[in-house]
Amino acid sequence: MPAYDVAERDWRLKLNANEAPTTLPPLVEERVMARLSHIAFNRYPNLEMKDLIEQVASNYSLREEQVFFGNGSSEIIEKLFYAFGGKNHSIVYPEPSFSMYKIYVKVADAKGVPVGLEEDYSLDREKFVRAVKDSKASLAVVCTPNNPTGNLIPLEDVEYIAQNIDCALVVDEAYLEFAGEDASAVKLLKKYPHMIVARTFSKAYGLASARVGYMMADEAVVRMVEKAFMPYHLNVLSLVTADIVYQMRDEFQPRIYMLRDECRRVAEELKKIKGLTVYPSHTNFLLLKSVKAEKLNEYLAEQGIGVRSFGSAPRLENCLRISMGTREENDLWLGEVKRFMGGKK
Amino acid sequence: MPAYDVAERDWRLKLNANEAPTTLPPLVEERVMARLSHIAFNRYPNLEMKDLIEQVASNYSLREEQVFFGNGSSEIIEKLFYAFGGKNHSIVYPEPSFSMYKIYVKVADAKGVPVGLEEDYSLDREKFVRAVKDSKASLAVVCTPNNPTGNLIPLEDVEYIAQNIDCALVVDEAYLEFAGEDASAVKLLKKYPHMIVARTFSKAYGLASARVGYMMADEAVVRMVEKAFMPYHLNVLSLVTADIVYQMRDEFQPRIYMLRDECRRVAEELKKIKGLTVYPSHTNFLLLKSVKAEKLNEYLAEQGIGVRSFGSAPRLENCLRISMGTREENDLWLGEVKRFMGGKK
Repeated sequence: MPAYDVAERDWRLKLNANEAPTTLPPLVEERVMARLSHIAFNRYPNLEMKDLIEQVASNYSLREEQVFFGNGSSEIIEKLFYAFGGKNHSIVYPEPSFSMYKIYVKVADAKGVPVGLEEDYSLDREKFVRAVKDSKASLAVVCTPNNPTGNLIPLEDVEYIAQNIDCALVVDEAYLEFAGEDASAVKLLKKYPHMIVARTFSKAYGLASARVGYMMADEAVVRMVEKAFMPYHLNVLSLVTADIVYQMRDEFQPRIYMLRDECRRVAEELKKIKGLTVYPSHTNFLLLKSVKAEKLNEYLAEQGIGVRSFGSAPRLENCLRISMGTREENDLWLGEVKRFMGGKK
Repeated sequence: MPAYDVAERDWRLKLNANEAPTTLPPLVEERVMARLSHIAFNRYPNLEMKDLIEQVASNYSLREEQVFFGNGSSEIIEKLFYAFGGKNHSIVYPEPSFSMYKIYVKVADAKGVPVGLEEDYSLDREKFVRAVKDSKASLAVVCTPNNPTGNLIPLEDVEYIAQNIDCALVVDEAYLEFAGEDASAVKLLKKYPHMIVARTFSKAYGLASARVGYMMADEAVVRMVEKAFMPYHLNVLSLVTADIVYQMRDEFQPRIYMLRDECRRVAEELKKIKGLTVYPSHTNFLLLKSVKAEKLNEYLAEQGIGVRSFGSAPRLENCLRISMGTREENDLWLGEVKRFMGGKK
């Protein structure tokens, strides 16, 4: 089983995990702390998840039975793979995409069927559907906007896939809030009961510390998948924190806009640099490609700037993924990139 | 897959989950809140688990590589079952014992081999060893003190089992702090590299809300089992809370003594009641047996007092498990039990 090493050094600027650059908005943090101070620490979780489910269900006009929470969308996806996987079951996913898919395939004892993205990292929907059919897959996953490439899968392509496959389809929307709700597949859930949307509080809501994510799906799917979770799998501290954050989610819009703007601004700056390709992004990060990528990574690390390199991962050779920071932080690393890469185009 | 229903009504007195009767000691809570107010909510977990591991390793003179944390000892046990289970693998456990063992056996796709406890709920070590050998088990579990029966398995019996079986042996010590460290198998870890001790913060440390437990074992076992955990499986809020609680664990000794004393006092009172058998307990709960158990359960529920009934679980017919509350709380439910059961012996 491949391990996923998460040990970190102390970066001056940590841009390698697509975290938000700042902690909670002050108003939200104040409310979170007030709520935490009222916890009965001695009691097992009880209705805290229900409170959160009510909010999400009401926001998307779903029934409460259609929503379920996990320790990050990672746990949601892990359990979905477990529930639909097993010996002689195939799971289809795009490549490159979220690096954990292939690990969860192994945990689920299933067969992984990666479908290569096109040269520009777009997803060929026909090719994807064919792979699902040819492998008689029990589960297919798409990630939109896709991590680490940043591009959005057009909603009509997601729908096309849903229309043309019979197995369960997970739409991993970890970065969806950056692309805007219009891009979400949630509105398709009614029409496609084999579709499952996964979301997280770790990115746009800047709550990576608390490990909270959720799924939205048909009642029958939720009922099946929730059996793969332990009783009390989510702790009270994370649940009440997420509850406040979701209540106050409007407070996060300014930072979401800021990060989107920064993504655009920084991409324009990077495009001016010779020897660097920047991919369009609908997220809070950018994917760069350069023959000098490894050296650039080392140089940035020497300056205390941590970005994500993918080693020899398929289709990600010579690529770096950089999370957006505040404007000042971005100017700082942008300056270092320019210094290292030398002349303009 | 059997579901484990944890939905709860609003009890006046909740004595059904062996939780601590009160939240954190004020001094501890103050320190916990101060620590929580310094969290970078936007960052994924990083070194917080390492801090906790250092403390536990140092307390038990283990190497840090011998300690690993999970979302409650439940997750630790689930992952151990997963790591050692699988098709054609048998897992041996006592019956009656922690009701989740048989569920984790199913999750692990393994074969469960329950070994019946004796009439007085003691564990026949010979019989247990024989069951492990006969089933060619890959994993064996004992729970000491045993839940829900309350009795301690003598350390020499735990060692006898470790000496006489070759497969991995999990010693589930969820309630160990109530029995005292002398009863712990931790000190046997050096001698038996196939032994694994599981502990929790949910009971004696009254931190059920946070879902924190840990395992102590040989380095090679930890290395193997930790691969079954997701990256970032434990959230920062729970980790820093547990870190403070463990630093201040001496503050919990008075309540541990109080709960032990209450267990003894209440057991003496219950023994005076006709038609009621009380089992000796080394924990914070008591197991009662009575032909009137179901009716007693209903009566207590009507009074808003929630205790644990086991339905038709093997060897637990006519049994109720009642967690110790504060002295006042115990007098309250004791009064109701007396009222319902009628006359003294």
